Amino acid sequence: MKITLKDGSVKEYDSAKSVYEIAADLSEGLARAACAGELDGEVVDLRTVVDKDCSLNILTASDPEGLRVIRHTCSHVMAEAVKRLFPQSKLAIGPAIDTGYYYDFEHEPFSRDDLDKIEAEMKKIIKEGHELKRFTLPRNEAIQFMKDREEPYKVELIEELPEDAEISFYDQGEFVDLCAGPHLMNTKGIKAFKLTSSSMAYWRGDAEKARLQRIYGTAFNKKEELAAYLEQLEDAKRRDHNKLGREMELFTTVDVIGQGLPLFPPKGTKMIMKLQRWIEDLEDKEWGYVRTRTPLMAKSDLYKISGHWDHYKDGMFVLGDEETDKEVFALRPMTCPFQYYVYKNTQKSYRDLPYRMSETSTLFRSEDSGEMHGLTRVRQFTITEAHNVIRPDQTEEELSNCFNLAYYVLSVLGLEKDVTFRLSKWDPANKKKYLGDEHYWESTQEVLRKLLEEKQVPFVEADGEAAFYGPKIDIQAKNVYGKEDTMITIQLDCAIAENFDMYYVDQNGEKKRPYIIHRTSMGCYERTLAWLIEKYAGKFPTWLCPEQVRVLPISEKYADYAEQVRKALAKADVDVTVDNRSEKIGFKIREARMDRLPYMLVVGQQEEADGTVSVRSRFAGDEGVKPLDEFIAQITEEIRTKAIRKEEVEEEKK
Amino acid sequence: MKITLKDGSVKEYDSAKSVYEIAADLSEGLARAACAGELDGEVVDLRTVVDKDCSLNILTASDPEGLRVIRHTCSHVMAEAVKRLFPQSKLAIGPAIDTGYYYDFEHEPFSRDDLDKIEAEMKKIIKEGHELKRFTLPRNEAIQFMKDREEPYKVELIEELPEDAEISFYDQGEFVDLCAGPHLMNTKGIKAFKLTSSSMAYWRGDAEKARLQRIYGTAFNKKEELAAYLEQLEDAKRRDHNKLGREMELFTTVDVIGQGLPLFPPKGTKMIMKLQRWIEDLEDKEWGYVRTRTPLMAKSDLYKISGHWDHYKDGMFVLGDEETDKEVFALRPMTCPFQYYVYKNTQKSYRDLPYRMSETSTLFRSEDSGEMHGLTRVRQFTITEAHNVIRPDQTEEELSNCFNLAYYVLSVLGLEKDVTFRLSKWDPANKKKYLGDEHYWESTQEVLRKLLEEKQVPFVEADGEAAFYGPKIDIQAKNVYGKEDTMITIQLDCAIAENFDMYYVDQNGEKKRPYIIHRTSMGCYERTLAWLIEKYAGKFPTWLCPEQVRVLPISEKYADYAEQVRKALAKADVDVTVDNRSEKIGFKIREARMDRLPYMLVVGQQEEADGTVSVRSRFAGDEGVKPLDEFIAQITEEIRTKAIRKEEVEEEKK
Repeated sequence: MKITLKDGSVKEYDSAKSVYEIAADLSEGLARAACAGELDGEVVDLRTVVDKDCSLNILTASDPEGLRVIRHTCSHVMAEAVKRLFPQSKLAIGPAIDTGYYYDFEHEPFSRDDLDKIEAEMKKIIKEGHELKRFTLPRNEAIQFMKDREEPYKVELIEELPEDAEISFYDQGEFVDLCAGPHLMNTKGIKAFKLTSSSMAYWRGDAEKARLQRIYGTAFNKKEELAAYLEQLEDAKRRDHNKLGREMELFTTVDVIGQGLPLFPPKGTKMIMKLQRWIEDLEDKEWGYVRTRTPLMAKSDLYKISGHWDHYKDGMFVLGDEETDKEVFALRPMTCPFQYYVYKNTQKSYRDLPYRMSETSTLFRSEDSGEMHGLTRVRQFTITEAHNVIRPDQTEEELSNCFNLAYYVLSVLGLEKDVTFRLSKWDPANKKKYLGDEHYWESTQEVLRKLLEEKQVPFVEADGEAAFYGPKIDIQAKNVYGKEDTMITIQLDCAIAENFDMYYVDQNGEKKRPYIIHRTSMGCYERTLAWLIEKYAGKFPTWLCPEQVRVLPISEKYADYAEQVRKALAKADVDVTVDNRSEKIGFKIREARMDRLPYMLVVGQQEEADGTVSVRSRFAGDEGVKPLDEFIAQITEEIRTKAIRKEEVEEEKK
Repeated sequence: MKITLKDGSVKEYDSAKSVYEIAADLSEGLARAACAGELDGEVVDLRTVVDKDCSLNILTASDPEGLRVIRHTCSHVMAEAVKRLFPQSKLAIGPAIDTGYYYDFEHEPFSRDDLDKIEAEMKKIIKEGHELKRFTLPRNEAIQFMKDREEPYKVELIEELPEDAEISFYDQGEFVDLCAGPHLMNTKGIKAFKLTSSSMAYWRGDAEKARLQRIYGTAFNKKEELAAYLEQLEDAKRRDHNKLGREMELFTTVDVIGQGLPLFPPKGTKMIMKLQRWIEDLEDKEWGYVRTRTPLMAKSDLYKISGHWDHYKDGMFVLGDEETDKEVFALRPMTCPFQYYVYKNTQKSYRDLPYRMSETSTLFRSEDSGEMHGLTRVRQFTITEAHNVIRPDQTEEELSNCFNLAYYVLSVLGLEKDVTFRLSKWDPANKKKYLGDEHYWESTQEVLRKLLEEKQVPFVEADGEAAFYGPKIDIQAKNVYGKEDTMITIQLDCAIAENFDMYYVDQNGEKKRPYIIHRTSMGCYERTLAWLIEKYAGKFPTWLCPEQVRVLPISEKYADYAEQVRKALAKADVDVTVDNRSEKIGFKIREARMDRLPYMLVVGQQEEADGTVSVRSRFAGDEGVKPLDEFIAQITEEIRTKAIRKEEVEEEKK
């Protein structure tokens, strides 16, 4: 048989050989590094026997699929260690994932101490160098095998396989696991690993089923790679809005109120107010929007016209029961139909279009409490949502305006480089989920595609991500752990005006159907705040900070002057406080830095005598003594222009 | 027998006499004017026979109770006229009310034309001069009497009376009505009446029962009094926010969304935003408040702690069912318990108090759709609500601050003379509705009483109007029809901190319970907008107007200069538009006046050449030509100071 290798060269063998044997034949080093094979494009176990002509590529830890094999084997090693230390624990499942691997066990919650012990045991197992051997059993024997080992979750898994299935196992000596592979040849192949955390997980992700304990770990080919990853993870944890946002008193949650219903203490509220007023004024004064206020709930009648009752009822909070109540209401999941009735309140002519209605709108989504996360998965959120009613001939220009506004907002926030663009299309395989025919979708999608091309931004196209009424441009961002969410959306809707009998009067006095652009210029305030916390690790641009300046009198003698400084700054609309506790100045400065204050103004005898302030900033450290007026002029300009000053000093270690 | 008259004189008669006969004996004029008698303090029919010593006062149309009799007789005359014109109609009930009288009929809706015909028929009946005679029947005969006349509602009414009742009727010739009286002697006694409107009403006010048609009317002693009343009614209708607010595009409602859920088009939204930002900045920057944002719903668990689940569940929108759902939520009817958890988010010391948490808070009240009215009775509203957590020793000073802030807000809005003050106390006869004992209530009520006395405002005291946790100062206002509502409230609560385990750490490091003041500084935005519309008949102070200036170019040639003027004003944050339609300038001015614009700037050749504007205002008419800069300085100062300019010109007649 002829084996074509990756570099194009061909090897000939006269008898069947395993992938591992071929690797060994190519080079001893390659065999040592080999994790799996890629056989005619398919990832296979090293033990797979090749007996006919094919193309073959030996995968090592440098290949993503090779690294996956190391991690998968590492999850088996972890399971063996757990069974050694906690023989009563029961095995559920243990796959490789993008960041490493996990294994679920029926067991009490694991402490960090437990994890450390498991890690130590894993090191032993790796050092012992167990060979992994694959074998198969018919289904009945496989069930009996796991029954004998008292592993009920494994039994349940096998029982669901077809009657005639051959079930594969990997045996590494004292530990045998039900597994499809592929795996390393020997546990010694694991060079660098770490158990990162543990948490509760439901069996099969079902809240009605057993509560298990999941241990997360990761593994890399080299110790340095692992160290770099762990550092990155530490950084992510440090920035994690769900931790940092609470520590900074930007938000909190309360058990008796409910998950996904965050409360914003004064500091978080102030940040959201700054964002909200900025967007409202920007849209109304500079981008030609008018503003509406519409109710947060409506009778089911409205959602029946809009299609939400049929397409979206499960996602809504419904009040009452159609069988028994005179009126059934639902909390709104979006603003669209409410703004349509504002449009319809007076007759519009072709001259009134584009009619851009924006609203700072609170929306509700009914989701399970288990799905909730910090400020990014919530049941109630507020977003500045607009519906621009346009004439068909205004489509391209108005879409371009919407894109430009969103991009402008992103760049003011310093986030424009952190996003990706997605053209979200319908799913041609599932046409009944959507309004309109193939022509409608092809043509509207082409309009958005052209726009993205014109704007010269790279973008991906995704089937099945459109709204039911039209395609979208989605602007996506990732959180510190790599999870992607939609932050901003621009949607073209040439269909729904019909349902609501919306029209405008054209030049000839005839009634015409408008198009509608559904759009946001910023993500919802909750998610945007989360994003900003993670982006800046809490060290926000000055204009956004809830406390921009803290005045630190050297001693109580200068309390009056400190108050005078505070008043002058407050009058200039700067968010300023005074720390007039009887603490040492060093302590006050340290605390202000811990609070991530942009500016600290130290004032004492000299400053009072000269009408100056001694400026320390988060950006440049000691900025020297300045006349108070000069500092006020400088910071108000920084706030007015929403400048993002670079942090030029090393962060103080905690 | 001896009759003591109102002036103290005594009349003696040797035989029984009716009140009417005594009036006639006193003077013929008095008999003509007599409507009823007041016999030993009780209002009685003129036909009542006096047969023993008593005090007697003859009531005429000048006495409120006398006028009521005229109106009640007028309702019988109206019913007779309806039966003459529409013999198939069925009679329900027809009482006198504060503003006149009404009668409910089973009939098709009445048009204004119908009302005019009925009025004409009533005039005939009055002119014919029918005597009204009272007679009684035993219950069975009374039922048969109304059965014979095919009046099922009357039959139902009589059937509910006791078996042994003597039922009284008034017979005015061809029309006989079941009635307790009292009534005039003759239909001729009605001098001036008017039918004002008609609307649907349910039999016995029950939406499950028959739909009837109610005709409202009024009657006075003199034509001039009627005319004055009708003019006042016209003025009220002209100011009625539920009509004018819709005409001015400040709000609207939509059937499929629901009653009590108003939508605010851009103009109404802008007014509310101006009010909201003003209050937010006033509280935060000048009165020491911090701001919170808390969720609009919570699990039932929260309301069980707060007491709302027991005391207020019927008034809340509840989502889900405790029997079947894992989590039951309710939309919040007030902000209190949410802000308590913001307070509890970090430990507070005695130095942190008063801790004044304010929130622009949307609230929900579950009420029947039939109860809804314009912007004053709604299911969802937004209010800037605060909870000031204080040390007991700060009670008087903080209550005084709250009162001063509310009074300041009222006076800026020009409403401070239109309110009354009420000390709302508990109901000592219904103690179980309230937390705390008699001492708690007496002492807290005394604190509020003293405050009102110190502020030197007149006030009434009302039992049973307190919150369940403490007494209130309520600031009340009336709408154009005289209906009173609470606009602002200041509540002292020394009880609820216990339920939420709220505390502060005192000078000695000990945990102490704070008191809480629940307060608003302005009414909810919906009700305040309604009040302002009615107060100013839509001619708002300039700062509040959604459109403050309209630029009117004399012809299209001056469109560029008009745009230049608009930009300069917009830059100074003035809400300005340009009317650049090709219409005559007179037409544009008329329309701007109809729209109640504060300022119109006419611009033409001369203005463009000189950089000036020709100013016309709603206040002073023609204000002459001014340099643009001067006008901008003038209007921005007027807006900044929230000045209320007097309207010095007559309103243009529509």
